[in-house]
Formats: sequence, C-alpha cells, structure tokens
Amino acid sequence: MTASTWMHENFEPTGSSIGFRITRKLDEVQSPFQKIEIWESTDWGNLMLIDGAMMLTTRDNFFYHEMMSHPALFTHANPRNVVIIGGGDCGTLREVLRHDGVASAVQCDIDEQVTRMSEQYFPELCESNGDPRARLLFDDGVAYMASCEPGSVDVVIVDSTDPVGPAEGLFNRDFYASCFRALREDGILVQQSESPLALLGLIAEMRAEMGKAGFTCFKTLPFPQPCYPTGWWSCTLARKHAHGSGGGFEFREAEARATALATRYYSADVHRGALATPPFVAEALGE
Amino acid sequence: MTASTWMHENFEPTGSSIGFRITRKLDEVQSPFQKIEIWESTDWGNLMLIDGAMMLTTRDNFFYHEMMSHPALFTHANPRNVVIIGGGDCGTLREVLRHDGVASAVQCDIDEQVTRMSEQYFPELCESNGDPRARLLFDDGVAYMASCEPGSVDVVIVDSTDPVGPAEGLFNRDFYASCFRALREDGILVQQSESPLALLGLIAEMRAEMGKAGFTCFKTLPFPQPCYPTGWWSCTLARKHAHGSGGGFEFREAEARATALATRYYSADVHRGALATPPFVAEALGE
Repeated sequence: MTASTWMHENFEPTGSSIGFRITRKLDEVQSPFQKIEIWESTDWGNLMLIDGAMMLTTRDNFFYHEMMSHPALFTHANPRNVVIIGGGDCGTLREVLRHDGVASAVQCDIDEQVTRMSEQYFPELCESNGDPRARLLFDDGVAYMASCEPGSVDVVIVDSTDPVGPAEGLFNRDFYASCFRALREDGILVQQSESPLALLGLIAEMRAEMGKAGFTCFKTLPFPQPCYPTGWWSCTLARKHAHGSGGGFEFREAEARATALATRYYSADVHRGALATPPFVAEALGE
Repeated sequence: MTASTWMHENFEPTGSSIGFRITRKLDEVQSPFQKIEIWESTDWGNLMLIDGAMMLTTRDNFFYHEMMSHPALFTHANPRNVVIIGGGDCGTLREVLRHDGVASAVQCDIDEQVTRMSEQYFPELCESNGDPRARLLFDDGVAYMASCEPGSVDVVIVDSTDPVGPAEGLFNRDFYASCFRALREDGILVQQSESPLALLGLIAEMRAEMGKAGFTCFKTLPFPQPCYPTGWWSCTLARKHAHGSGGGFEFREAEARATALATRYYSADVHRGALATPPFVAEALGE
C-alpha cells in the first residue's frame, strides 16, 4: 500500500484552493518555458501541474476539452480549418478531430515538453496525434497567428494557461487582431476564460480586448471543471458579425444531436444549457 | 491588515479538497448535535463549517439555495404547502417564500444553533424568517415527516448535510416512505444529492431507496457549487407518477420566465439547461 498525502493549489486571485489526494510524483521537467510536474493521485488518475498550477487530471479533463471544441465547431456552419493555440496536452486536438468535416487542425504550443509528457502520462489524449489532418507545431502562438494567411481559418481555439507567464500574450488586443485577420468572415475565436464566478472581471476585460480587435459578438459558456479554481470554468466565443437568429451563437443543434461523437459531457442539450447565461453573469458582462 | 492563512477541507470520499483563504475564526459552538464554526475569509465572506465540513459561504450559497428550491417549485403545478427538512441556515426557506403561491413553509432542522448562527453571520439568508407563512421547528426531521398528515404536502425539500452523522437517517427507504405518505399525489421530493461526478454511486443509491419507497420518476439536476467537493453539485427530484410530456419534470417555463424572483443563478433557461443530463451521468444513472 502506497502512503497518500494531500496536495493543495492555493489560488491567490480567487482566495480559494483546490487539492487532490496524491500518492507520488511520477515526473518533473523544467522546460525552457516552465516547470511541468506529473503526480499520481488516489482518485483522479494522473495530474499535470505547470509552474505549480493544476492543468489537468485523467478523470475530469473531458469537461474542458469537450467544451473548448464542440460548442465552437457546432456553431460554425462548416468548420474545415482549425487552429489550436496552446493545447499541448492534445486533448482539444482529439476532440476537434472527431468532426469528420475538419480538413486540417494545427496545434501550436510553445512547449514541446508538454506534449511529450502528455504522450507518456495521458496517452488517451494523444490517440489522434497521428491523424493525417493533424499538424503539431512547437512554436510561439502569437507569432504563428500573426503569420497565418488572412482569411484562412474557420475556428481558432485558444487553449492556454492563465494570463500570466508564457500565456500572457494570448489575452490582449494585438493577439486577437491576428486571430481576427486569420479568420474567415464567418470564423469563430474561442478561448478558455477562467471562472465565471470569481474571475468575471477578467472575462469582461478579455471581451473588451476582443472588441478592440474587431470582434462584435461574444458569448461565454460555463461548464464544470473540478480541478480548476472554484470548480466552475468557462470558454468565451467571439465572432466578427452576428449570424442568424441567435446573435451568432445559435448552433447546428440537429446535427449535434444526430452526431455520435462519443462525448461524455457534451451533448446538444448540454450545449443549449451552456448558452443559458445565469442572471448574475449576464449582468456583469452587460449581456 | 489582518494576516491570512489557508484552510482546506480534505474530502476523503472524493479524494479531493476545497479550501479558502481565511483571516480569523469568528465563532465556534458545540451544539448537542455537532460542532459549528464560523470563519471570516478574504474573498468569500463568512464560512460556516459543521463538524469540519464546509456548509456555506456568503459568496456562493446562492447557487445551492436557488437550485434546491426553484426547480422543484416551478415543476409542481401549484405548490402551496412546502416542508424543508434541514436547511437551518434558512437560505432555502427564503427562496421558497419568494413564490407568492406558497401558503405555508415549515422548516424542520434538528439543530437550533445552526439557525441562531445564521441569523448572526448570514443575516441576509434569514430575512424572510418573520414571514407569516414560515414556521421554524427545531426537531428531528425523520420524526417530523413520519408525523405529517398523509397527503398534506406539495413539496418536501431535504436540505441536509452529508449522509453521515445527524443526517444519515435522511437517505434511506424509511424516511422516503414518510415523505411519500406526506406528499399529495402530484407532490415532489427534492434532496441535495452530492457531486454528480465523484459521488454518482451515492445518487444511484438514493434513487434506488426512493424507488423502494414508491417514487417512480427521478431527475438529477447538476449545478455549480464552488464550496462543495469537486465544485459541482446536484439536487435530485422524485415524483410518485409521471406528469405530462417531460416524464414528470417539465416545468412551468413561461411562468418561470415571467416571474421576477430576483435570483442570481436560477432562470428559466438555466432550469432548462439543468434538465440536460450529461451523457456520462445519464449512463451511470440508467436514464
């Protein structure tokens, strides 16, 4: 029997903490960008921490990866070319590639080490890395988006760490302007947008920066994510213009319902539910 | 400036932990039933712990209290007589009394001390305690339900602590049989039902016990609750028979939409969203 102990991540901006019962450290690597740790837990499978912040667990990452991908892909009428900025654990890439209509999915994460460790400790997330439609780049996401051919991308997914450290440049007007330029007219930007309870101010700032870059329609979708501060997380979608009756965020509901994606959290009904912005969130975001 | 530190609740059944940054202990009372502590936090207002388990915070209790009351009350066609078992902090009672149609709301908590401390440290939750429709009893909920006149209650809300200690008797067939007997034919039982990710087995057991007591329709609604283990919680509704097209759980959506309840999380759309059982939950519960 392995002795267990508790590991807590005290998250200063929210004044709250999340922790797990762990048994041992499986690996630790200091990459050129950040410190990556892998721990074994008693109930949550393996845990990945980056610079001390919980990134994912085997048990609960499906909430995040499904909600970062399927709502955006079912909102776009015909997503063919997808770019993922960050996402080095490859879980979002796997979900994107479940969509048969996707012709190309580029994943650009600055830190190759994240992917190497995901291959080893979260192999299920990497099972689509060999898909001929997938292209894994290890490069600066800001530079990559700036270099994209204008109007060449349908969906940009920003699957990054918090807006401090290596990911800081992914939360400002300049980066969003690159995304805007790279997207086709009906394109969609989607970004992880932290806790809709405790970090609403950050979501409002993100949306304001996206607005300065030219995006005009925004929608923040909440979802559970036990391993992140407050256990309640969100992604924010942005479009250049309103489309259809839903202000840009109606989705291909019948197709979502008919498509067997083998998702565990996402469904057409869950997607519809995530569009129901709670009153206090709507008030804070001026919706 | 007050020094702060971190307080963690390590929850053994889920192998996960929730914590808050606290400044000082405001109060501690050992009642005949349990130890009740009040702490001041930096970001979450006051915290109440019972026997070391986080019960509520000023900042996030609205999720729980709104979801324990409004879905059930808007599902019933005309809820007039409501019983709350537990609920000593009075937050659920306050939400129930927002419904003008409610003629009586009995709150029966075994521990008067919980209410006295809520009055002092969470006064906003107790602002409806003087409502002439409210009746606060401090007595054994199991005995109270057993003594209710048969067919006299429209909605029973079981707002209890975890199924260990004083609340253990609120999670079994005998108690549910008392609820069944007390409820009118179209009555609804609703109970807090723990984490729909980490404690799905418990939810399945609860539903099985409710079934043995005669209930035939069940629906588990998830909602965020940052201060509880995993940050994702649920309530489970049970009815004697299916009603209407939704198997018993369609609700008065138009009325919910038109009613100004001053809720922060609950809305007709959020209620609709909570009825969307995620695929992995549906699979585990055999829905």
